[in-house]
Amino acid sequence: SSVVINLNPGVWCTRNFSSSEKFVDVSMNEKTGISTVTMQRLPVNSLNLELLQELSNVFDSLEKDKCKGMILTSASPTVFSAGLDILEMYKPKPDRLKDFWSTLQDTWIKLFGSSYATVAAINGHSPAGGCLLALSCEYRIMVGPKYTIGLNETQLGIVAPKWFQYSMENVIPKRQAELALTMGRMFSTEEAYKVGLVDEVATDKNDALVKAEKFLSGMSKVPTMARTLAKLSSRQEALEWLKNNKEQDLKQFLGFVNLPAVQKGLDIYLESLKKKK
Amino acid sequence: SSVVINLNPGVWCTRNFSSSEKFVDVSMNEKTGISTVTMQRLPVNSLNLELLQELSNVFDSLEKDKCKGMILTSASPTVFSAGLDILEMYKPKPDRLKDFWSTLQDTWIKLFGSSYATVAAINGHSPAGGCLLALSCEYRIMVGPKYTIGLNETQLGIVAPKWFQYSMENVIPKRQAELALTMGRMFSTEEAYKVGLVDEVATDKNDALVKAEKFLSGMSKVPTMARTLAKLSSRQEALEWLKNNKEQDLKQFLGFVNLPAVQKGLDIYLESLKKKK
Amino acid sequence: SSVVINLNPGVWCTRNFSSSEKFVDVSMNEKTGISTVTMQRLPVNSLNLELLQELSNVFDSLEKDKCKGMILTSASPTVFSAGLDILEMYKPKPDRLKDFWSTLQDTWIKLFGSSYATVAAINGHSPAGGCLLALSCEYRIMVGPKYTIGLNETQLGIVAPKWFQYSMENVIPKRQAELALTMGRMFSTEEAYKVGLVDEVATDKNDALVKAEKFLSGMSKVPTMARTLAKLSSRQEALEWLKNNKEQDLKQFLGFVNLPAVQKGLDIYLESLKKKK
Repeated sequence: SSVVINLNPGVWCTRNFSSSEKFVDVSMNEKTGISTVTMQRLPVNSLNLELLQELSNVFDSLEKDKCKGMILTSASPTVFSAGLDILEMYKPKPDRLKDFWSTLQDTWIKLFGSSYATVAAINGHSPAGGCLLALSCEYRIMVGPKYTIGLNETQLGIVAPKWFQYSMENVIPKRQAELALTMGRMFSTEEAYKVGLVDEVATDKNDALVKAEKFLSGMSKVPTMARTLAKLSSRQEALEWLKNNKEQDLKQFLGFVNLPAVQKGLDIYLESLKKKK
Repeated sequence: SSVVINLNPGVWCTRNFSSSEKFVDVSMNEKTGISTVTMQRLPVNSLNLELLQELSNVFDSLEKDKCKGMILTSASPTVFSAGLDILEMYKPKPDRLKDFWSTLQDTWIKLFGSSYATVAAINGHSPAGGCLLALSCEYRIMVGPKYTIGLNETQLGIVAPKWFQYSMENVIPKRQAELALTMGRMFSTEEAYKVGLVDEVATDKNDALVKAEKFLSGMSKVPTMARTLAKLSSRQEALEWLKNNKEQDLKQFLGFVNLPAVQKGLDIYLESLKKKK
Repeated sequence: SSVVINLNPGVWCTRNFSSSEKFVDVSMNEKTGISTVTMQRLPVNSLNLELLQELSNVFDSLEKDKCKGMILTSASPTVFSAGLDILEMYKPKPDRLKDFWSTLQDTWIKLFGSSYATVAAINGHSPAGGCLLALSCEYRIMVGPKYTIGLNETQLGIVAPKWFQYSMENVIPKRQAELALTMGRMFSTEEAYKVGLVDEVATDKNDALVKAEKFLSGMSKVPTMARTLAKLSSRQEALEWLKNNKEQDLKQFLGFVNLPAVQKGLDIYLESLKKKK
């Protein structure tokens, strides 16, 4: 039987890799000092190596430029991010696969441990890796009512690594995190709000951006250095875990992806996608 | 003064040990693959060495048979389990006392870290060790409104070991766990539901079993290996704590039980039970 | 720009040090065995070296006298405690500064890990170090509706040390603790109750004391040794952290206070206070 089950048919992107495209747009509000980072690898912002590299570079720039606050959002009208690009894991080239996972690790470390304040304006579905990006921000505003969010890896036959788990436990109670992670549960906007997975609900993307700016405006009144140190102290255990276990975490991922059962599962899954088209 | 205070008079069983009896019934639904494990050491399922050994063996079998899901419940009409059998601790034989505690440790490790999904159908009172068994499952459905549940060890002058504490913190917020553990609080069905100690309330045992099957049916749709790994990852710290501290935990228990004050307290307590009869 | 921002103008005390005064009053109810510890360094119970030393000594005495339960409250009509006395950090004498921080560490270890049960009757504002004292107790009753409480260190450009963070995470969910600590948020009585930062709301000081006695009366029915061991087990990680990191924590505090930017900030702040007068 297949190890991959598709919850959101059609959500996964199958376009070819291209490093010449620009998958991330950054715009800065000169008045407020707030940067808006928009993922634009359409249709669904599948996180492939290039998109992750761009995000990672953008986070470096914001750090260097002493960014006041950052809003992470999507150019798609219905999807925040569909998560990791499955094509990166299907019949992978060893070096690229390593780069892919290492870049994901680094992107998370930079976002989860950024010195600037971060908000996710979740303007669409946000499964798996998309949810991870949202969880790594300090505040989440989600457009409702019709979208879904969650770490649904187990539904796909995959296990969310330890740092995905820590990212969720940083936001919702341990009890809820265990249930959500074992079931691979996707939450509706309202359910996500109720359990604390998102902090506010917005009527549309514009409303989400307005609310995000309001949150960041409050944060900007707090002395910067103290604010950053308080954040890093609160997130220290999770950050240190990945920093100290990068190699082991990478090895585990590579071993998993290269299992014949996993490759076969991906094969069946991608075939079924083709047929749908 | 006595170190043992009885909260639920008459709840503790005083029958003799007997290894020939069958204290656990296992029935399997061929259609669903769900096993129902019923504790039947009447009247109150006091956890003595033999009951624990049977539970431990049953959990091994379920693991070997690749059980799809397990419901833990009781044959008593009013008690899920009254907790550890006090007679195991009163004037104990050294070897049996060691076996008793080691078997409790192993039973917990197997249940808390089982690869199959687990639900407690709590059809009666569930103090101390009874509550521990319920907490070790992944989901709790409790019959209401008149039963009680809790780790009430401190009320009996006993300290719940570290892994009892972890089991509770895995389910309810740390703040509530500290209050409940220091006070040895027993929760009514409604209070338990409100604080998150149980996930659902049932009208009677049959209703509890139906709800348990519904939960397990949802779980069975999640790919097994991923589901199990997610559960073990979520419970890793608690499991590793006991695995790494079994000897020390056993030593602490033996030292405590053999304190003259504790033996004297048990003596007074058991005398008072006899007088009641 | 200043690293210190004043949220509660006028709250900080500027009186001179004097070791001859008595900053703490202790009264014992012979009938119940409950001790009421009243901070009376008026006007606002700023925590200077002498007040902390008195508190530390009082906690030692209660421990020695096998106190049944303790209520911590304030003689001020509007302030529980304004937190650390800024004058201890402004142009400090090296030895006194060391003593100051070490005494704060010891006071926290004694209060957070006391063998007797503890309640804070919060009869006024309770920012920063005042909030820390309240968080270290096992139960909090706050007079409403017009007071505020919180670890607002970041608002003052200061970072709450790790053990302040642990004290807050022991009481409210990690998610709420991160938001509160990064923003340096002050909660109104009602907000504090809603998030779980306080357990009960009282109409005035007398009502708070009555409620505190009721809580301690319940606690006194639990066998003492078991109760204490359960509390210490629940608080073990936080207590061990500080016990194992006292030197490093002190070093970090001394380094921070002696930063030119911090001293300049304090200078500007104290000047602004003088002008107000």
